[in-house]
Amino acid sequence: MEDLKILNPALDSDLDIEDELDDNNPFDKLREECGVMAIYNHSDAARLTYWGLYSLQHRGQESAGIASADGTEVNDIKGMGLVSEIFTDDVLAKLPGHIAIGHTRYSTTGDSALLNAQPISVESTRGLIAIAHNGNLVNLGNSKARLERDGAVFQTTSDSEIIIQLIAHSKETTLVDCIADALTQVDGAFSIVMMTRNRIFAARDPHGFRPLSMGRIPGVDGAPDTFVFASETCAFDLLHAKYERDVEPGELIMVSEDGVTSRYFDRHTKQASCVFEHVYFARPDSKIYGRWVQQSREEMGRTLSRESGVPADLIVPVPDSGVTAAIGYAAESGIPFNLGLIRNHYVGRTFIQPEQRVRDFGVRMKLNPVRSLLEGKRVILIDDSIIRGTTSRKIVRMVRAAGATEVHLRISCPPTISPCFYGVDTPSKKDLIAANKTVEEICTYIEADSLAYLSLDGLVHSCTAEKPGATPVHNTFCTACYTGDYPTQWVDVADILPATTTV
Amino acid sequence: MEDLKILNPALDSDLDIEDELDDNNPFDKLREECGVMAIYNHSDAARLTYWGLYSLQHRGQESAGIASADGTEVNDIKGMGLVSEIFTDDVLAKLPGHIAIGHTRYSTTGDSALLNAQPISVESTRGLIAIAHNGNLVNLGNSKARLERDGAVFQTTSDSEIIIQLIAHSKETTLVDCIADALTQVDGAFSIVMMTRNRIFAARDPHGFRPLSMGRIPGVDGAPDTFVFASETCAFDLLHAKYERDVEPGELIMVSEDGVTSRYFDRHTKQASCVFEHVYFARPDSKIYGRWVQQSREEMGRTLSRESGVPADLIVPVPDSGVTAAIGYAAESGIPFNLGLIRNHYVGRTFIQPEQRVRDFGVRMKLNPVRSLLEGKRVILIDDSIIRGTTSRKIVRMVRAAGATEVHLRISCPPTISPCFYGVDTPSKKDLIAANKTVEEICTYIEADSLAYLSLDGLVHSCTAEKPGATPVHNTFCTACYTGDYPTQWVDVADILPATTTV
Amino acid sequence: MEDLKILNPALDSDLDIEDELDDNNPFDKLREECGVMAIYNHSDAARLTYWGLYSLQHRGQESAGIASADGTEVNDIKGMGLVSEIFTDDVLAKLPGHIAIGHTRYSTTGDSALLNAQPISVESTRGLIAIAHNGNLVNLGNSKARLERDGAVFQTTSDSEIIIQLIAHSKETTLVDCIADALTQVDGAFSIVMMTRNRIFAARDPHGFRPLSMGRIPGVDGAPDTFVFASETCAFDLLHAKYERDVEPGELIMVSEDGVTSRYFDRHTKQASCVFEHVYFARPDSKIYGRWVQQSREEMGRTLSRESGVPADLIVPVPDSGVTAAIGYAAESGIPFNLGLIRNHYVGRTFIQPEQRVRDFGVRMKLNPVRSLLEGKRVILIDDSIIRGTTSRKIVRMVRAAGATEVHLRISCPPTISPCFYGVDTPSKKDLIAANKTVEEICTYIEADSLAYLSLDGLVHSCTAEKPGATPVHNTFCTACYTGDYPTQWVDVADILPATTTV
Amino acid sequence: MEDLKILNPALDSDLDIEDELDDNNPFDKLREECGVMAIYNHSDAARLTYWGLYSLQHRGQESAGIASADGTEVNDIKGMGLVSEIFTDDVLAKLPGHIAIGHTRYSTTGDSALLNAQPISVESTRGLIAIAHNGNLVNLGNSKARLERDGAVFQTTSDSEIIIQLIAHSKETTLVDCIADALTQVDGAFSIVMMTRNRIFAARDPHGFRPLSMGRIPGVDGAPDTFVFASETCAFDLLHAKYERDVEPGELIMVSEDGVTSRYFDRHTKQASCVFEHVYFARPDSKIYGRWVQQSREEMGRTLSRESGVPADLIVPVPDSGVTAAIGYAAESGIPFNLGLIRNHYVGRTFIQPEQRVRDFGVRMKLNPVRSLLEGKRVILIDDSIIRGTTSRKIVRMVRAAGATEVHLRISCPPTISPCFYGVDTPSKKDLIAANKTVEEICTYIEADSLAYLSLDGLVHSCTAEKPGATPVHNTFCTACYTGDYPTQWVDVADILPATTTV
Repeated sequence: MEDLKILNPALDSDLDIEDELDDNNPFDKLREECGVMAIYNHSDAARLTYWGLYSLQHRGQESAGIASADGTEVNDIKGMGLVSEIFTDDVLAKLPGHIAIGHTRYSTTGDSALLNAQPISVESTRGLIAIAHNGNLVNLGNSKARLERDGAVFQTTSDSEIIIQLIAHSKETTLVDCIADALTQVDGAFSIVMMTRNRIFAARDPHGFRPLSMGRIPGVDGAPDTFVFASETCAFDLLHAKYERDVEPGELIMVSEDGVTSRYFDRHTKQASCVFEHVYFARPDSKIYGRWVQQSREEMGRTLSRESGVPADLIVPVPDSGVTAAIGYAAESGIPFNLGLIRNHYVGRTFIQPEQRVRDFGVRMKLNPVRSLLEGKRVILIDDSIIRGTTSRKIVRMVRAAGATEVHLRISCPPTISPCFYGVDTPSKKDLIAANKTVEEICTYIEADSLAYLSLDGLVHSCTAEKPGATPVHNTFCTACYTGDYPTQWVDVADILPATTTV
Repeated sequence: MEDLKILNPALDSDLDIEDELDDNNPFDKLREECGVMAIYNHSDAARLTYWGLYSLQHRGQESAGIASADGTEVNDIKGMGLVSEIFTDDVLAKLPGHIAIGHTRYSTTGDSALLNAQPISVESTRGLIAIAHNGNLVNLGNSKARLERDGAVFQTTSDSEIIIQLIAHSKETTLVDCIADALTQVDGAFSIVMMTRNRIFAARDPHGFRPLSMGRIPGVDGAPDTFVFASETCAFDLLHAKYERDVEPGELIMVSEDGVTSRYFDRHTKQASCVFEHVYFARPDSKIYGRWVQQSREEMGRTLSRESGVPADLIVPVPDSGVTAAIGYAAESGIPFNLGLIRNHYVGRTFIQPEQRVRDFGVRMKLNPVRSLLEGKRVILIDDSIIRGTTSRKIVRMVRAAGATEVHLRISCPPTISPCFYGVDTPSKKDLIAANKTVEEICTYIEADSLAYLSLDGLVHSCTAEKPGATPVHNTFCTACYTGDYPTQWVDVADILPATTTV
Repeated sequence: MEDLKILNPALDSDLDIEDELDDNNPFDKLREECGVMAIYNHSDAARLTYWGLYSLQHRGQESAGIASADGTEVNDIKGMGLVSEIFTDDVLAKLPGHIAIGHTRYSTTGDSALLNAQPISVESTRGLIAIAHNGNLVNLGNSKARLERDGAVFQTTSDSEIIIQLIAHSKETTLVDCIADALTQVDGAFSIVMMTRNRIFAARDPHGFRPLSMGRIPGVDGAPDTFVFASETCAFDLLHAKYERDVEPGELIMVSEDGVTSRYFDRHTKQASCVFEHVYFARPDSKIYGRWVQQSREEMGRTLSRESGVPADLIVPVPDSGVTAAIGYAAESGIPFNLGLIRNHYVGRTFIQPEQRVRDFGVRMKLNPVRSLLEGKRVILIDDSIIRGTTSRKIVRMVRAAGATEVHLRISCPPTISPCFYGVDTPSKKDLIAANKTVEEICTYIEADSLAYLSLDGLVHSCTAEKPGATPVHNTFCTACYTGDYPTQWVDVADILPATTTV
Repeated sequence: MEDLKILNPALDSDLDIEDELDDNNPFDKLREECGVMAIYNHSDAARLTYWGLYSLQHRGQESAGIASADGTEVNDIKGMGLVSEIFTDDVLAKLPGHIAIGHTRYSTTGDSALLNAQPISVESTRGLIAIAHNGNLVNLGNSKARLERDGAVFQTTSDSEIIIQLIAHSKETTLVDCIADALTQVDGAFSIVMMTRNRIFAARDPHGFRPLSMGRIPGVDGAPDTFVFASETCAFDLLHAKYERDVEPGELIMVSEDGVTSRYFDRHTKQASCVFEHVYFARPDSKIYGRWVQQSREEMGRTLSRESGVPADLIVPVPDSGVTAAIGYAAESGIPFNLGLIRNHYVGRTFIQPEQRVRDFGVRMKLNPVRSLLEGKRVILIDDSIIRGTTSRKIVRMVRAAGATEVHLRISCPPTISPCFYGVDTPSKKDLIAANKTVEEICTYIEADSLAYLSLDGLVHSCTAEKPGATPVHNTFCTACYTGDYPTQWVDVADILPATTTV
């Protein structure tokens, strides 16, 4: 190619160190680890579970699994990837029966990741038990050590296995008593569904950290109803199931031939449900802790507008999670709303199997500014969090480069200053920008014209107030990531578990 | 499982025939066949082409390909699937050189689909030529018959092969003359990029049916500029390329060591650019035919509101394509906008490799209503087209079942009454509901409280008017799908091509 | 295709029921379940283990796994398929350390088959332990019930998990005592390798059912030696390891920083090593129970010739396993040897992932007669077993159809009349033709001109005699499949384990 | 791992440069490029073609394809990999019809390799034509230039495409005349099968370089016969087809509704059939050029023994290709034959998808010596060729290391001194050891005690003599690789075709 003297090296200087810091998570979002699902009494229980998991796919895209039972045998199948990739018709055909549970998982990668996929099925003196789990246990040291002293061996690093070992080692007589006994011995976040060959169990930790709801599909032609449990109610809609109620914090529900029975293994702990489910995790069409997420998010936007309004020409959400709050902000402020950033939908919520080239470009591969909207405008960007700050800086720069005269960033929750130990994949404190800089310093770093976060009161109000002026109810939420006040005495699990990820 | 008398068969009756009719296209949208891309003078031309194709992924998800050259050799690689799946770093490393063209394709499936993937590369008396093509040729009968009489053999069913054979059979002397000669012999829609070992060509059919734009990345450090061609300008943004101008209808551009040269192989045909690019195909952040798509769509919504307003409480778009028009409708009408339908993003714009279970549920697997928003409201749904009507009916029912008291449907273009022969995968006339029913009958069929389409004048106005009151310019657009007036004398290609899809 | 009146339906009638009976095993051979491998003190222990497993691939093709340790961490990787497919360089790079164990497995299929792959790694009060196991335990009822009463939960159906649970539940103080304690509590066949983060263990059941040998790679440049354990000595050759001795029945060997230590957990049981390893399983270049397999097989052929010679023109082995015996038969009888049946090597020893079309043709897809050799000849076929008889019949017919005037079948072991419970996948008694028919009846069934089996004395002689006339030593072999005399009181494991294969 | 001072680095020095020289071909064998197959008049023609290709798999493992027709439509499917991997039941179901052709191919790798897979199907003025080709054309310069001047474009680098373009450009009237016309315009080796929607053609170049046979499956129940064409007769056996005769050199056969017709497009060229088919390529159960390969190989061994016998204790073949000659050698010499080298069958004839670790060990991963046989013996090794010599040296060393006191190597053909241009993948002259060293020097290089090759007369005699003393018929064979006398005036195709492999 001697005939072309000078090639254009443009763009090569475009890839900077920062891009690589958050390569695996180009939107700089926090990630939760699981969605769970259970069906009792439907002729095609595994298929319904599959549909439910499909609706819960946003809660974890690494692996998924379903176990089913027909009253006699239990079968389970797990795989790496999206629910719709794993469970083809052929695969579902191997999961007969009227009972099923399912799980979808975000997780650290690793060659043995499939071994950590759920549901976990074990044979025990109580017969076959399968379990699927959302959340993260803490303070496991004593339980694990005691179990190992009693001869327990651990094949995975999942919390589910600890719970199931505690059940197996319980001295109680009936299975349901063993389960209740086991659940009193663990600390932390767990929303669990379990099954045997002919029963379903659902339980939620005493703080009620993670959501878990119960629904019902009315029986047709005189048939008994089908019972459904799911991490989010959006999983009910596809099944035409009706939301019945939440599994309560500290409650253990059993569904069997004899119907639904409920007991409480803990009634005394103060509820501390994760508020970030309303801010970011849950789908807006879900009802979480009995309240519509859409409603909370719109109110976050409205409150944010009231708390820290600024004159502007355009409200632009950072898609997709900032959209509802932006609509609320726009409605409250009277400033026009429009989609000034277009998201490329050919990558998932987080990158499925991220590969080098996509990562190098980070956020620019996923978002593109709409110059015709932004040019000459004073823009208010609405996002739901700032974790490290690098992504926000890129977005602010991008919007300004597209012609915006001012770029104001508004965040629909308070500054994230502390890691979560209850099932959210937060980076450590040193990587959380708000743990290390003031709001003013963050504003400078991200190069915005102004920056404001929603107040804690404003957030809690947004997630509770049915009508303007209602009293905020602080204490039913876990807001540790904003305050550092943890509902449990936490211990970093990394201190307990062995360093190896594969055994 | 003898212990459970009656299983709940709920849902089984839910799968009706209609669902299966449009299984492969659960949103009942029209599909276009391609996006094209070309780069001249960049040290990593294949990588830039890859990024461009990634931005054009919405124009075709079945297969993709890139050919590159370093002045001496031409290499090409094609594969089935998404751009990001095919072109890993390892693969891109096999595509060295400063020149590249690329293609992404929606297509009918088939085991030999890879053979129809593009670019097509051939060795000829003119040396190595690679071609990538967007659009659909018509009236091929004579050309093909003549070529075959001259000994041509066809290994694919793609239009690109016909063009390349015409080039090879041309009696002209220079390659650029041969290309111009060939392009005068075909009829229909083509936006083409071609390359040899050291040159790039770009051309657009005389009607200018499909878009094709030219951009430029300024050379750094005194290096010459990089030239970029792409189906949509959104592909320029990721490359930091500046939109320069459109390739004009009937124009053939060559980029070589000697710079950019342009010639017209046809100056006399009246422009007839596909208006549906503005309605649906193109990304809102693209400039198509020199106009921002976002602007057109917002104006469609505004005009629709003026033409057929109706009292309501909420404007809800059918995501994602209806969003911009809905924002315009809301702004014009003063009725609040909100996302009352949530789209599950774990399936692509159209189903990539649709599989049985997902399909059975059709639209319900992709959209879920937000009950908290819809309940008790008079809702105006904004969508961009009704093809068969079955999907619209499901959406109307879904919104009503979620509590809406009234459901009005507004469509941001006129009724689709005629198939397209210029690169859009329209069903035949008998399957187009608007070709067979009045608007009133359609309204009854889809069970809406009211239905209105944007007028043809309103549509053209929306795609042209820079400010309210500007004169609409009908005749620069192809609106055949709304009027049946085809700019060319069309012949159904099915009558010409052999029945077999694999040879 | 109206222009062709009558299509030739030849071959359609060729697929009969019998073919389908043994579709998965077209050679009608018995299958063993595992090969194991261990390395202590080599800088690339996982790679050496990989090479060893590659040499042991004939002992199991379904899944394979390797665990390695560097003194601190233990990592393991398992996968479905052949060793060379699973362990690429990238994968081996994730298995650092100087200690490793490996496993290759034939097994029943099932979606959860990977969960049953080995090595199994667990965390216990004894730290991390990984285990790989060849053989089959019997009489597990009591052990399992006792373990479950003590709270054990079983995640797999593999015997390895039972052994590891017994170790974890042992009341002994040191790990080596716990292992010895555990091994005294199980009955049946086991040749085991185990590892912790810094030690290797190898043990063999008191009967010594399955082989397990120890080898040594001399240290170079003053480095200490590397110790190797493998199911067959052929795995030593590729590593340039020298055969040292067998792990003795009832022996437990530990290799650690302190060198090699040995103890016996059982000294009183009479050896009963599987004679079928010499007949069929092991590779002819392996030394099994201290004797070359090649030598045994050649002697089987010679003895067979002496015991039941018949006038003939040609000795033809059923490849590949019958070849060595056939050479011996030919040498002893003076009748020429030749390869009258050609094996298609594009399928493995047993079909890897058998697929419909290959199976329909059963044995004919794998063997083809050489007409030029067989035509007009009196042929003696040499094979190593007849299980159901259907395959033998097909081969006899095939040879006769190729022109042989007489077909005599000679089997290099006695009639197989009883199933194995020690690690061989024998069909049940009702499917063993020799359990249900006399030799004469079998001869009629398979349509041979004559049929003879090697006598039990002849077999044992062949596997022991160093020179003609040496005394046969019956009682060191397990010959239960020929006699029905089981060395242990067996219980069909199917009666104990749950019906489900996946939990 | 600080607790282990010195790890054993044994084996690391074992990988030398030579191993890497012939990594892709650890047996140092020559490779041929194709097998072809055709079926006329069977209700399941594609399936029969699949079975035939399965039997021809040894002639090419890279890709395979089948085209079928039902009198109206032609379908084709090609894929990378083994026949049994590509053609599952689902795939075969897409190939209906009573006519089919197939192809299996060894080839250079490359991302566009699938585009070079065969059959190639084209649409032309003659209708749909599919072609599959074994051999290699030479002297293409003029034909290609003339075709390109006439407007032909080439999408592949395969010879098949040239033939088909020549057919399409022929001025003759009927298709069969066009084919005959085309075949007179090319030079080199071709054994071709072709099909249209309702006819089959088979042709062989005038020298008859490559084999091609015709067989017949008798019609049952009064149905007309099925006609079969295949590269080797072993493909007939599985179909129960009877060998009818060879397609003659220079003959073109057409099978249609009107039956079988034959014509000669060249009667004057002297036959020069590849003798290496008898030495190595073909399966021993095939009849090639009307003679059983098994017979030729056994006679090669016998002649070799007569020509260059040496006192020894054991005849050991290099498996698998040396086995038959070794049996002949043993029979003639009276020295015992045995399998002193065991081949690991978990890799194919050549490595399918060779991967790093397997290659590093080269031949040792595939062959293992049987020490019990070799120890203390004077061994004669029988192999069918020496290409570079590196592999032979390793085998000689291996056998000596296993205890052989003398190692004599006998080769069942003359020294290979010249590359093949007729379809065999020979290295260039500089890499052929016999082109650069005397037999004595080669013997020294490979470290054998003695080395001898079969004489050319001996080879030709072995491939022709029906009984001892028959006259050898030199001139019907191409022995250019042993003599350098090429039947055609050859031109290296590398001089003509473009350097790029992908266009």
